[in-house]
Amino acid sequence: MALMSRSGAIITFTSDFGTTDHYVAVMKAAALAHCSGATLIDVTHAIAPADILAGAFVLERAVVALMPATVHVAVVDPGVGTDRRLLVVQVNNQLIVCPDNGLITWVWRRYRCTARVLSWRPPQYSNTFHGRDIMAPVAGMLAGGQPWEQLTSGPIEPRLLDIDLVNPAQTREGQVIHIDHFGNCTTNILADSLSGQLVAVKDQLVGPVRRTYADVEIGEALALVGSSNLLEIAVRGGSAANALGIGIGDRVRLG
Amino acid sequence: MALMSRSGAIITFTSDFGTTDHYVAVMKAAALAHCSGATLIDVTHAIAPADILAGAFVLERAVVALMPATVHVAVVDPGVGTDRRLLVVQVNNQLIVCPDNGLITWVWRRYRCTARVLSWRPPQYSNTFHGRDIMAPVAGMLAGGQPWEQLTSGPIEPRLLDIDLVNPAQTREGQVIHIDHFGNCTTNILADSLSGQLVAVKDQLVGPVRRTYADVEIGEALALVGSSNLLEIAVRGGSAANALGIGIGDRVRLG
Amino acid sequence: MALMSRSGAIITFTSDFGTTDHYVAVMKAAALAHCSGATLIDVTHAIAPADILAGAFVLERAVVALMPATVHVAVVDPGVGTDRRLLVVQVNNQLIVCPDNGLITWVWRRYRCTARVLSWRPPQYSNTFHGRDIMAPVAGMLAGGQPWEQLTSGPIEPRLLDIDLVNPAQTREGQVIHIDHFGNCTTNILADSLSGQLVAVKDQLVGPVRRTYADVEIGEALALVGSSNLLEIAVRGGSAANALGIGIGDRVRLG
Repeated sequence: MALMSRSGAIITFTSDFGTTDHYVAVMKAAALAHCSGATLIDVTHAIAPADILAGAFVLERAVVALMPATVHVAVVDPGVGTDRRLLVVQVNNQLIVCPDNGLITWVWRRYRCTARVLSWRPPQYSNTFHGRDIMAPVAGMLAGGQPWEQLTSGPIEPRLLDIDLVNPAQTREGQVIHIDHFGNCTTNILADSLSGQLVAVKDQLVGPVRRTYADVEIGEALALVGSSNLLEIAVRGGSAANALGIGIGDRVRLG
Repeated sequence: MALMSRSGAIITFTSDFGTTDHYVAVMKAAALAHCSGATLIDVTHAIAPADILAGAFVLERAVVALMPATVHVAVVDPGVGTDRRLLVVQVNNQLIVCPDNGLITWVWRRYRCTARVLSWRPPQYSNTFHGRDIMAPVAGMLAGGQPWEQLTSGPIEPRLLDIDLVNPAQTREGQVIHIDHFGNCTTNILADSLSGQLVAVKDQLVGPVRRTYADVEIGEALALVGSSNLLEIAVRGGSAANALGIGIGDRVRLG
Repeated sequence: MALMSRSGAIITFTSDFGTTDHYVAVMKAAALAHCSGATLIDVTHAIAPADILAGAFVLERAVVALMPATVHVAVVDPGVGTDRRLLVVQVNNQLIVCPDNGLITWVWRRYRCTARVLSWRPPQYSNTFHGRDIMAPVAGMLAGGQPWEQLTSGPIEPRLLDIDLVNPAQTREGQVIHIDHFGNCTTNILADSLSGQLVAVKDQLVGPVRRTYADVEIGEALALVGSSNLLEIAVRGGSAANALGIGIGDRVRLG
């Protein structure tokens, strides 16, 4: 193994592993073995087990936030040990290493991407933890500067989730696609498609699109453009998810 | 943007963001964009939403623990999007970037500090996530060595929480101000004001101030000077908060 | 204090501190004070309070995953403040700093180790937080390259937990020793001792040892060799612990 070290290299980690076990540390070690000194950033490990859609949303947010040359490892991988493929995807001069199970959907639909099949394999590897044995080492190699062509084969079309994510033409209706720690409910409606409409969720009128939380009283619901540049339903000083009984997939209407 | 990189630079992060979303990673990316290679330390992201007092306590503990030149970002910011100011505070040759909502109270009351208004703004920024758009980038600039005068204006008196924190004259009574993961209950009574008194919490006698947990039997309550140099109520091998029904704000008496 | 800085130095942290308080950050600061720029890796801080066995298992997994020269700090330390000793243990060219309370048991039983008593003490230190005051600083010194002989005295036999961990002769029966975030149940039966036997847990037949999760239907239980190279009981796409009612210590039989 050629140990590379690159000052300023960044590797992010997104998974459904939780933080009660050693799994995250083990992945980081596997990456560092190929890129000593890289900066390691946890995006989250609290994706619900096997919730590929939730992972897809958070991964896109990490890609938007990080700088060129960042390598992302995303492991929500219920199909580990089957013949599902692994991917390396290039977007915004960043690279993503992940299973080909739809986890790339959100990034793929919003940005110009190129995908290749991750073909590198170590001499021996487990059937249950490809994050440790394949994806993290490859992320380390890529962060260390190894060209992705050496670790991958032929461009491919990745498998995508069959859900309706952001549709630029979609200006009258959308869905809640993420509920955050505060109970803010992010929708798949892009800010660009908004122009002062009234917003309703689950047939409850929330009101016009506001500028910030403080535009309403504490405890009151509002719609606003969140930090993801998507329409969000919130309650000032509270949880919109709890107060309005909102769940993933709930319909949001503009009118 | 002038990208600075300083070997050994340290940036800490304290927030009420939780760790289920991408928010913490996004703040770290925003800081690293201005100070590549900095060491990033999470203090905690489990402050209860909008609990400024809890954030103020933990932030002070981070300041005491970290070395000169550290930059701290603390974001418990229910007023984001209002006209509340942002601060940069200098203490012990460290810098703290935070909203001017009382989060600095505990540090301000215990140490000699100087505060200035954070006046730097990016060309465009959200109304909902100043941690990402303003505070983290500024922390990166400061960690990279940019003088704080360039990013701030006029010295000011910060807004403080209207609560009774450590009062050196207060030797007979105090309050529980923090309950930790183990159920240990930290009070606002400084070790210096103690001299062998009996301690009572919520009118339950806990006994004299002990040296360490092992001075009592397993399952027994005790008072001792904790690692914060403050009087603490604990149960050996258990949770004082649960066993004695203690909550934040409960009265502690010496006599 | 001589501040050392070593590019590529790695320090890992395992504890029962949780992540709601400042304790982990404080330990990291204490380590960095002696080894600026080290890469810091959290193994987990979610060990149940005082659960030495759980800490011992996870610590072994960290040792297996990390590279030579790594220094591990493991603090599950209900005896802090008593006369329990502190240890430095050398294994696989790595060093572990931990209390001498059995936390080293699993590493000690599986690998060739050497242990010495950690004799270094700072001029002043608390009775309640030796992780911050002694163990983390020593980890920093060791990561910075200081010889362990300078900080320790005489080789010793560490105190071990009186439990039956992996026994190479044990080919017919074992126990569940770890339940992970997904509900997968790891046993103390080494993969080497397996040869196509049927597996039963708590007198429920699970079936033959499989290759991977996908060898059974979704929702079905299976036995397989997990990523720790130990026999594991799992449910494809579910939690074996919940589905089969498995707990730590439950008997697993081969036949």
